[in-house]
Amino acid sequence: MNAMAEHEHAALARVVVQKWRDGLGDVQADNVAEEVPVALEYNGISHAVMLASPTNLEDFALGFSLSEGIVAHPSELFDCEVSNVSDGIQVQMRIASERFVMLKDRRRNLTGRTGCGLCGAETLQQAIRRPARVESHAKFSAAAIYAGLDAMQMQQAMQRHTGATHAAAWLAADGRITVVREDVGRHNALDKLIGALARDRIDFSSGAALITSRASYEMVQKVATLGIGFLAAISAPTGLAIRLAEQTNVTLIGFVRLKSHVVYAHQNRLTHDADLGRNEI
Amino acid sequence: MNAMAEHEHAALARVVVQKWRDGLGDVQADNVAEEVPVALEYNGISHAVMLASPTNLEDFALGFSLSEGIVAHPSELFDCEVSNVSDGIQVQMRIASERFVMLKDRRRNLTGRTGCGLCGAETLQQAIRRPARVESHAKFSAAAIYAGLDAMQMQQAMQRHTGATHAAAWLAADGRITVVREDVGRHNALDKLIGALARDRIDFSSGAALITSRASYEMVQKVATLGIGFLAAISAPTGLAIRLAEQTNVTLIGFVRLKSHVVYAHQNRLTHDADLGRNEI
Repeated sequence: MNAMAEHEHAALARVVVQKWRDGLGDVQADNVAEEVPVALEYNGISHAVMLASPTNLEDFALGFSLSEGIVAHPSELFDCEVSNVSDGIQVQMRIASERFVMLKDRRRNLTGRTGCGLCGAETLQQAIRRPARVESHAKFSAAAIYAGLDAMQMQQAMQRHTGATHAAAWLAADGRITVVREDVGRHNALDKLIGALARDRIDFSSGAALITSRASYEMVQKVATLGIGFLAAISAPTGLAIRLAEQTNVTLIGFVRLKSHVVYAHQNRLTHDADLGRNEI
Repeated sequence: MNAMAEHEHAALARVVVQKWRDGLGDVQADNVAEEVPVALEYNGISHAVMLASPTNLEDFALGFSLSEGIVAHPSELFDCEVSNVSDGIQVQMRIASERFVMLKDRRRNLTGRTGCGLCGAETLQQAIRRPARVESHAKFSAAAIYAGLDAMQMQQAMQRHTGATHAAAWLAADGRITVVREDVGRHNALDKLIGALARDRIDFSSGAALITSRASYEMVQKVATLGIGFLAAISAPTGLAIRLAEQTNVTLIGFVRLKSHVVYAHQNRLTHDADLGRNEI
């Protein structure tokens, strides 16, 4: 690894471990994924601390701000400064004043700590935010999804070193994986992807998001909020996630492997070139 | 599944899906894990909404209250009522008045929404809570850990049906798995386990917690807060988790499989009966 300035946070940590297999132990140096508290501030006010991989934090800040509905457009995030401090990382953002007023109102209504998983929700009514119905013209063949999965996995550098990180990737309309982001947290990986796409002014309705994790409610909520119409997950969806995908017109597929997948909602954006199986679809 | 009362939430949902393999599609009914917003209230005040599997919610409520430091002892949670409402599940708890005063003070200091992952933390100083050093006399052989892993996996009923849930299990001093709890969220599964153990007045220092997930910072923080001295995870730890385990005297092992594991911190509670490998340990 490169030499680092004081307080700089590396994505990987080098540790000495004992590896045991079949009763035989071996002392080795190994890489583990780092996890760093990242404090998000808007217009000088502390907002939240997230545990994240200390990479692509400008993308994370923009993606989080968008997927949480704090700003509605990238241009409303005027400025984002990431600085390493001894306890973690500080991300100081400056947002449009009308958005900051809305955020302060939201904060006033949400006094107190809030749960993991449903950011900012303290009551059940607040918890279930329904994004608008997604209008997306994206369309992919199953073969393109499988190839995209393969290409994403080839680019998971952090995961290859540590086995501890999730990834989110963008499958563009032409079938190429154009952006891959990694993080110890699956929500963070998706936020980093969203931020990277927003920065490049990518049309969210044109492609698909691939994720290495399960598809829980919030993952669908994030893609629907941005207008992404296609979410493909390596692992299982939850019942609540499927219902949200149905309601928001998001194509949701899960258990994506190199030659198989399961369709849970809005199959219309997915084409299957090969023969149909024994049941009519 | 059994007939359910109105608003009752099942742990599994039945959905119709398309399963595709090698270009052949098949329409099937399938089980997915349900995910339900669970609103936690203390003494009539909304506290947080968590997305969780709607099972063992009394355990969850007690475990969350303990691992988040809202109560310091099970006896301080006087009452816990779980009711199904249309938007989710409401858990109304009554805690000792001095604890409620402390919670209100904490809430006053934490106005606004807070991050996923670091519950209640809005600034970096709040984020890194250091539990006291764990005094645990637990000691297990690698063989007992492997057997415990096997026994835990046999009891993951929800996971077997859905492939979408995590588990946390208690390996008692005699090598038996005595409690297994499952949830769509890994933190929730651990909180449910902690609540179940606390309810039965189990000595936390006597056994080990096995988890099917990665070992991130918060997982170590939760076990250390309760005085559990041994955490065994199926997947990888993070660098921050390893350092916290070192500081709080928690034995941390990861990548636990049926015949292998990696030791990251405080090997002293783990014995290896078989021969040592080529490097001295």
